[in-house]
Amino acid sequence: MLVLFTDFGLTGPYTGQMKAVLMRQAPGVPVVDLFADAPAFDPRASAYLLAAYADAFYQDDVFLCVVDPGVGTDRQAVVARLDGRWFIGPDNGLLAITARRAHRRAEAWRIDWRPKQLSSTFHGRDLFAPVAARIAVGEPPPGARIPPASLDRPDWPDDWAAVVYVDRYGNAMTGLRGTSLPPSAVLIANGQRVEAANTFADRPPGTAFWHVNSNGLVEIAVNQGRADVLLDLDLGSEILLET
Amino acid sequence: MLVLFTDFGLTGPYTGQMKAVLMRQAPGVPVVDLFADAPAFDPRASAYLLAAYADAFYQDDVFLCVVDPGVGTDRQAVVARLDGRWFIGPDNGLLAITARRAHRRAEAWRIDWRPKQLSSTFHGRDLFAPVAARIAVGEPPPGARIPPASLDRPDWPDDWAAVVYVDRYGNAMTGLRGTSLPPSAVLIANGQRVEAANTFADRPPGTAFWHVNSNGLVEIAVNQGRADVLLDLDLGSEILLET
Amino acid sequence: MLVLFTDFGLTGPYTGQMKAVLMRQAPGVPVVDLFADAPAFDPRASAYLLAAYADAFYQDDVFLCVVDPGVGTDRQAVVARLDGRWFIGPDNGLLAITARRAHRRAEAWRIDWRPKQLSSTFHGRDLFAPVAARIAVGEPPPGARIPPASLDRPDWPDDWAAVVYVDRYGNAMTGLRGTSLPPSAVLIANGQRVEAANTFADRPPGTAFWHVNSNGLVEIAVNQGRADVLLDLDLGSEILLET
Repeated sequence: MLVLFTDFGLTGPYTGQMKAVLMRQAPGVPVVDLFADAPAFDPRASAYLLAAYADAFYQDDVFLCVVDPGVGTDRQAVVARLDGRWFIGPDNGLLAITARRAHRRAEAWRIDWRPKQLSSTFHGRDLFAPVAARIAVGEPPPGARIPPASLDRPDWPDDWAAVVYVDRYGNAMTGLRGTSLPPSAVLIANGQRVEAANTFADRPPGTAFWHVNSNGLVEIAVNQGRADVLLDLDLGSEILLET
Repeated sequence: MLVLFTDFGLTGPYTGQMKAVLMRQAPGVPVVDLFADAPAFDPRASAYLLAAYADAFYQDDVFLCVVDPGVGTDRQAVVARLDGRWFIGPDNGLLAITARRAHRRAEAWRIDWRPKQLSSTFHGRDLFAPVAARIAVGEPPPGARIPPASLDRPDWPDDWAAVVYVDRYGNAMTGLRGTSLPPSAVLIANGQRVEAANTFADRPPGTAFWHVNSNGLVEIAVNQGRADVLLDLDLGSEILLET
Repeated sequence: MLVLFTDFGLTGPYTGQMKAVLMRQAPGVPVVDLFADAPAFDPRASAYLLAAYADAFYQDDVFLCVVDPGVGTDRQAVVARLDGRWFIGPDNGLLAITARRAHRRAEAWRIDWRPKQLSSTFHGRDLFAPVAARIAVGEPPPGARIPPASLDRPDWPDDWAAVVYVDRYGNAMTGLRGTSLPPSAVLIANGQRVEAANTFADRPPGTAFWHVNSNGLVEIAVNQGRADVLLDLDLGSEILLET
């Protein structure tokens, strides 16, 4: 299975052009849109989101990851094999958290191959998609091995106390895993205390609470309301822990 | 064919995660997005929409239906076989109108199976998608038979004189079938008279009219304009018939 | 491969219903969404966009093209074979620029076939999709040959100095090909001078520039900003060349 994780958005031809490459070069391999609205131009927030959501996928699934504000510069392009899954993307930290959390041996390669025509603005279609298709049909990564630790960004914490995604319901996912907090923890979001609840129905309408979402991330929500509006949260908003 | 009918919206990972389950567990079965923007948290409006749009599909197609404000509560999960098609979803009225209109013998089952890990907020991925995949590959519903009449909501009318969907052009679909009205019927929407027309070009620009849309529903439209704006219509807006 | 080029938008059931027809009638043929947000009701702007984006596709790919403000009137429906690719759509100019630029022998047919049920508002599903599916599985076009030159609109220029698409980043694509301008050309957009740059990083933040985008079109962009906002550009906005 090929899995797309990008900040290309839903409109325009970008995702479709990338899929056309995948379907042409890896015929018969299913393609799934995981995120088309990953945090735009933000490899750091995207890195925590990717690590949480990739975790539910399977051995040999191939993630095509494009959150790439440095497209057209000399940032490298990489392939990683992490817990049996493959990841293709720019070497800008996007794969850092997934690599750091790999339970088994991590491997990484620099992409040395270049297409005949490489646009300066659309490496997703021209570079990353053809490499992902090759991997999906069983070919080896087209480049030299690099130390997998080079994918990491050591100054980024294991769990990041900040908003990494706001969904259409206004729920604010954080870079904190549920396993990193005791259930009694109280969060402070823009000065407001936010206690835990198991389900939406446990809290009165209009009250913010945190819970562990269906992919293991600490998420701030409001029963019958929008957490992003109530607490003025946006991508990158810092979350504190009451001590 | 697997057909998705949800209120998950277009953004975020929710539809993609559900499709990943379907593609993994029902390999080779095509998956089609029918509605990702069914009336949110509104099983009643969704029920009329689903009944109208399912009607054009085929024997053995499998509908994965998730408009589920009661997720995490004790509402039941069900499978129904209606006019040869399969429907999987919550037992909250979402399948009521489709079941009521079935021409042939209707059958229904309670879903007794539970996955090893069932999140409290995402039964679409954890419960309904695996069951839909099983049905799509020919396995029987995993649970006990229930009376199909139990899916119905007897207090809901056969045709509902209310807005059940507003499309991107501002056309307001109602829960009325075209077969339920004479062509001479005049609707009253927010106090405004709305007469019938066969095509958009039959009415002057800026004038509201009703017509029977391409799936048989009475729809209020405006030539070169938005009916929702002109008549201040929204989901659930009541429509009257001039007598 | 079946390629969708429509102005149906992302919401609602329209694209899904069309795909259901394609998957049913051309089983196993991959379907790609190229544009679901082509310029709405605007065959002219869409024609320049389609010609630029179709160019990257392959022999025997089948384009289902629906930008069709005249649906329900007596405009004809056509099939064209252009540079080995197939195009199905209304005869309203949408295929004009692609046909004009065909390097090899162009062929065209009128669609004489009609389905048993043809809605007045949704020929994409009822007429064009079944024909596209037939072509995709190798059947001949269902109708009489017509002169391919009849698809053209002779009063439309080879390159159109106007905005034909604004993407989600605010980049304004024009109907001008990069090959039609010298690199030293200066554009005038709403009275503002716009010079060329090779990459976004070549220009200071907040400054507009033009470049040749990844599909060969002249595109006006702003480093770390939105060109549509800065220069007040919209679909159809005229672009001048400084002389």
